[in-house]
Amino acid sequence: MKRVVGRYSLANSNLDESELPEFEPSSDVWNPRGTPDEATQAASLSALSVDMRVTENKAEHITDKYNNSNLIVRRGKEFTIIIKFDRAFDEEQDNVEMEFLIGSAPNENKGTYIIVSIGKEKRDVSWKCRVVNIEGKDVTVGITPDPKCIVGRFRTFVAVVSGLGKQRTPKNPDTDVYVLFNAWDPADQVYMEKEEDRQEYVLNDVGVIYNGEFNNVTVRSWNYGQFEQGVLDACLLVLDTAKVPLVFRGNATEVVRQGSALMNAQDDDGVLVGNWSGEYSTGTSPTAWTGSTEILLKYASEGASPVAFAQCWVFAGVLNTFLRCLGLPARVITNFCSAHDNTGNLKTDIELDEDGKVDKGKTRDSIWNYHCWNEVYMKRTDLPEKYWGWQVVDSTPQETSDGLYRCGPTSVSALKEGELSYQFDSRFVFAELNSDVIYHQSDENGKSKIIYVDTAYVGRLIVTKKRNSNEYEDITSSYKYPEASLKEREAMQMAESRGVPTRDYFPFTEAGVDIELQADVIKMGEDFKLNINIKNQTTEKCNIHIALTGCVVFYTGVTSSVFKFENKDATVEPSQTETVQISIQAVEYMRNLVEQSNLLFVVYGNVEELNQSLSTMRVVTLRPPELTIQVTGTPQVGTELMVNVEFLNPYNFILKNVQLRLDGPGLIKTKLKKYRQIFPGGSIKYKESIIPQVHGKKTLIACLDCSALRQVTNQIEIDVLKAMDKLVTRETDKEKERVVENENNNP
Amino acid sequence: MKRVVGRYSLANSNLDESELPEFEPSSDVWNPRGTPDEATQAASLSALSVDMRVTENKAEHITDKYNNSNLIVRRGKEFTIIIKFDRAFDEEQDNVEMEFLIGSAPNENKGTYIIVSIGKEKRDVSWKCRVVNIEGKDVTVGITPDPKCIVGRFRTFVAVVSGLGKQRTPKNPDTDVYVLFNAWDPADQVYMEKEEDRQEYVLNDVGVIYNGEFNNVTVRSWNYGQFEQGVLDACLLVLDTAKVPLVFRGNATEVVRQGSALMNAQDDDGVLVGNWSGEYSTGTSPTAWTGSTEILLKYASEGASPVAFAQCWVFAGVLNTFLRCLGLPARVITNFCSAHDNTGNLKTDIELDEDGKVDKGKTRDSIWNYHCWNEVYMKRTDLPEKYWGWQVVDSTPQETSDGLYRCGPTSVSALKEGELSYQFDSRFVFAELNSDVIYHQSDENGKSKIIYVDTAYVGRLIVTKKRNSNEYEDITSSYKYPEASLKEREAMQMAESRGVPTRDYFPFTEAGVDIELQADVIKMGEDFKLNINIKNQTTEKCNIHIALTGCVVFYTGVTSSVFKFENKDATVEPSQTETVQISIQAVEYMRNLVEQSNLLFVVYGNVEELNQSLSTMRVVTLRPPELTIQVTGTPQVGTELMVNVEFLNPYNFILKNVQLRLDGPGLIKTKLKKYRQIFPGGSIKYKESIIPQVHGKKTLIACLDCSALRQVTNQIEIDVLKAMDKLVTRETDKEKERVVENENNNP
Repeated sequence: MKRVVGRYSLANSNLDESELPEFEPSSDVWNPRGTPDEATQAASLSALSVDMRVTENKAEHITDKYNNSNLIVRRGKEFTIIIKFDRAFDEEQDNVEMEFLIGSAPNENKGTYIIVSIGKEKRDVSWKCRVVNIEGKDVTVGITPDPKCIVGRFRTFVAVVSGLGKQRTPKNPDTDVYVLFNAWDPADQVYMEKEEDRQEYVLNDVGVIYNGEFNNVTVRSWNYGQFEQGVLDACLLVLDTAKVPLVFRGNATEVVRQGSALMNAQDDDGVLVGNWSGEYSTGTSPTAWTGSTEILLKYASEGASPVAFAQCWVFAGVLNTFLRCLGLPARVITNFCSAHDNTGNLKTDIELDEDGKVDKGKTRDSIWNYHCWNEVYMKRTDLPEKYWGWQVVDSTPQETSDGLYRCGPTSVSALKEGELSYQFDSRFVFAELNSDVIYHQSDENGKSKIIYVDTAYVGRLIVTKKRNSNEYEDITSSYKYPEASLKEREAMQMAESRGVPTRDYFPFTEAGVDIELQADVIKMGEDFKLNINIKNQTTEKCNIHIALTGCVVFYTGVTSSVFKFENKDATVEPSQTETVQISIQAVEYMRNLVEQSNLLFVVYGNVEELNQSLSTMRVVTLRPPELTIQVTGTPQVGTELMVNVEFLNPYNFILKNVQLRLDGPGLIKTKLKKYRQIFPGGSIKYKESIIPQVHGKKTLIACLDCSALRQVTNQIEIDVLKAMDKLVTRETDKEKERVVENENNNP
Repeated sequence: MKRVVGRYSLANSNLDESELPEFEPSSDVWNPRGTPDEATQAASLSALSVDMRVTENKAEHITDKYNNSNLIVRRGKEFTIIIKFDRAFDEEQDNVEMEFLIGSAPNENKGTYIIVSIGKEKRDVSWKCRVVNIEGKDVTVGITPDPKCIVGRFRTFVAVVSGLGKQRTPKNPDTDVYVLFNAWDPADQVYMEKEEDRQEYVLNDVGVIYNGEFNNVTVRSWNYGQFEQGVLDACLLVLDTAKVPLVFRGNATEVVRQGSALMNAQDDDGVLVGNWSGEYSTGTSPTAWTGSTEILLKYASEGASPVAFAQCWVFAGVLNTFLRCLGLPARVITNFCSAHDNTGNLKTDIELDEDGKVDKGKTRDSIWNYHCWNEVYMKRTDLPEKYWGWQVVDSTPQETSDGLYRCGPTSVSALKEGELSYQFDSRFVFAELNSDVIYHQSDENGKSKIIYVDTAYVGRLIVTKKRNSNEYEDITSSYKYPEASLKEREAMQMAESRGVPTRDYFPFTEAGVDIELQADVIKMGEDFKLNINIKNQTTEKCNIHIALTGCVVFYTGVTSSVFKFENKDATVEPSQTETVQISIQAVEYMRNLVEQSNLLFVVYGNVEELNQSLSTMRVVTLRPPELTIQVTGTPQVGTELMVNVEFLNPYNFILKNVQLRLDGPGLIKTKLKKYRQIFPGGSIKYKESIIPQVHGKKTLIACLDCSALRQVTNQIEIDVLKAMDKLVTRETDKEKERVVENENNNP
């Protein structure tokens, strides 16, 4: 929106700057109230330079990891600077102001123009200021930004005030200071009590994102890279590009809500272009990225133009970087079996035909194998206190985000209680977690009826990375009460009292016979067997007719093609379980595979004796071949290490236009290597030398991607020693083990 | 968003249609379960035609005012149609289905494909269906759409079902039926109990919108025109253009929320382009419109391209049409002294310099003289029941709607209680109603302090049109508890517990001296006097120094120029009131006037004895010259009436490029007459002949507009008699009086 005459626009760019004059005469200057002598004397003080004490302050503020030469502080905590004057500073006589300005229209009433004083005049403002020490002409000043202040890049000026006016230091970008949210300050909206939490959710710059299926969870590493050079500026650029008013940038709720909209290009030049088409030749495929750094730097270097392409974990990964970079505690969540594009009625409909085969034309709903979103930890001061804490925020552009839905923040604890009246977008997330799967079957006249309802399939498992570990933490219970518990029923009743349609298909009579689909971990390109276990919990023998549909699906659950349909009959004695085995040949599915190699199997069963039907489904994610990473040498700051990445094409077809990425915050900037083709049985070996820049635990991530093969990733952890430290033998041994051990990242 | 492979798109257009085959064979046709004889016999029934009984049903459904040849019904209420068969219908043997389809992907589970049955097969669906009467080959069928069903245009088919398959009637747009919300049905989300309410808020197609200032309220008539030809289709086009998924179109909350976004062009080709610049030569000036019909028809005829230009009352007027047209009870609200572009901190800052003069550079907030929004009456099923009823919705694009704010629906009763956690956008509306005005004054060093706080200025008066009257109804008490009451304090505390910043400038010591600005109704171009009344409530005599700043402002409160600054001194005895009079000459303000001719006066006072400051402000809206309308003839359907509109230019300057519009739903389509110039003292006379089409109380609206003169409007009510009725003398007399009486519309 352009600024127009007759209406007021809020300042909405951190980068736009207004000029302040170096000398600003007092409005009283021709009729001074002070005597000319006093004015002259006071004017004789002059600030020669300002030392922002960048190294010391950054260490104190736990911002030393940011690869950025400016001072970066967390609000609500004091930082100290040294002002050098041309003569000794007199606290009783002199009057010096420090000014912190942000944006093009700094205004004291808007928190965009902060003036604090030292010396004889005191100001009562939200930022605190004190003289810490005077040593001759050097004055150490302590400044504490208000714990609610705007987050962003402030310009700093020192102004000597006299009867004649204000004499300012010249504009100097080196004295700009970035102010961030502060998870260490109890007065901050985003305070976290435990240091271990803050280390993970604010400071960890690498992580893993879970995918695959709920009973075979796989991982991929992600370089969040919030401390990498240029990333903090890119995050502020995102806010500026979207014209987020500066006055809102101190409120975590609003920054988070904006962030959810801004990661996707659908809202005014956001960061990422979503694409689920399988055709990514005009950009980078969503599966090829190793982290956020490459994406955010590309976005910034190309004048805030959206980067192609992303799917849910890319949106979640980049949003996580944005949040942690600004100091907000954040994590990436994976919800397995996530109901999507749901109309809010908590129903996902699967249509079967007369024979129990999935009717592709009529089945329009889908359940994503997994969906990633983020959580941010904060006091939701706009909500009752019991709904504070972790909040869901989702930046994947969903069908409905055009109009009704922008996603989050919404309180996890309110979702659990079914309290869906509170802002923002809780109904949508609730449906992703709690929809029922309704199996319909049509008769010969096309008349359809409900044959089975599965209330447990959706939102099956919700996970996030454990603190200080790559294992997953099961956080399902923070979103949902146990299936079929009293509390769960109460939460559902609450949701219904908040406008969720009542589930009018209950009570639903069950057959007393259960079917379960079982599969092992299966490598892509191999034949395998599916077990259908039939449990007869009745007291009668039963004959059951079984129909299995096998489809190739996208991770979004959308069916690409049906490759298998098979019928079987079985007889099961009372209280017994029979297993029916169905063989799947690689040739059946290989030519149809799409994207992340997911197969969906739907089983329909009809119990002859009861004339009752039942149904179940199961996704099988095929494992891609391995990518191996070897590191040789001593991992030490400034010492060269050799990295060796290898891959063998196990298939009988050529892999074309292969991209191989190597990435590791603190170790190496994202490297991209391209291979035109890899022949059947052929292999590639990629060697790279790296010189670690930062000590501590680092992760090296490799990712291979081409249109026929996605999700081939691996990572290796490296403990980098300080530059001059002597190697401890045990560490070296460990490192050696790693060289031997490195394996595909599947747990 | 384009539909992409691998993801599912919800159907989102009422106009996109899928084809249904006229004959659909049974899937069982080669292996029929029925005997061949049965199949053949059943197949011999054929539906020859369908009579939608448009006139009878429309009268029953109170939709007969819609100028549209199709059937229009309100959901939840039965309508009857007659199917003509080729032989007598047999309820025991025959099986006939009626199908109602909407959009391109009709689906029984989504409410976009409704199948109801008559005859031997019954279906259990949400729409009810019964055979009302059989007369030979004619069957009268009663159909009751579900009270929660999708609102829009459904295609109708009759299908005879036999063992061979379904034989459908051919596609025929004449049998399409529009289904609307139903304020008459207690089961509907938008039910209103009182017929008087429904008559006004659903059925009244003309209204008045209030503007001016809170103590000199003025009106302009607005042609909502929801029944005019093409308007209903235009409203559905708006939803289609924005790709509002069909499945959401049965939920009033969601239709209303979408409506708020869709009236403005900032959200994907919405209806109107906002413009507050004063430069409207590339479109129609916001003040020149007489109603919604012209705008919506222009939008539709130009392929859903946004119409230029609008300001708040135009947005509110067109949204009101959209809502009433779809059957939602709605009304236009005016909030006088509406705080805008507020950062949500409930503060509007006015900066004065040392001398008490308004500092234009530093005063960035503004208070709109008035702001219009809408209310919709509904059960907010997503909120606790106490927050049902009238809901605020605002389609004026506000600075912040880009990111955080889309406005409403938000519960009026929740706003009153300060309960701001509930969706949608309550904090923003609360600030519009409850901000404090903070007067700051800078000293000679630029150091600013708060000198006065006015808690009563904002949200001063909230009005809407009375039912069956053009008087306004004061509904301030539905939004706010009385100023300074205990309940008001409690509501403010509730708001603070919901994250509204605490008002840390309290308790604020008051001077014990009050100033009040008083002005009469003033005609544009005249000299006038302002009275400043100074009330001394202390027990001491006081000397007060007064400074008056006079600014020309837009109705948005944004200052265009300062035309007056005057100082006065006064002495007021204890418990006395003194009046200081300041004269304003027309020459002082005339050359600076903008738009709606608003002058803002800010008074600063300093009480010498107490060294305390106080401040107040007041907007004066100058009245434009009169536009007169005369109607001669007998107002009767089909009989010609003569309309005479006259205007005299009272100024000493030429009025250029003058537009004159004449409009009146049921009387005349919007007529536009252009005059290149009107000389000083010159007048125009515009004659038009009209032939009323509909009987009942009608309003004829005239509006004259040019860049030097805005808001010149008038209207006249005409009671149109039925075509063949004899005139009642009393009515004629009344009409004659009106011809004499017609006056400028200012009360």
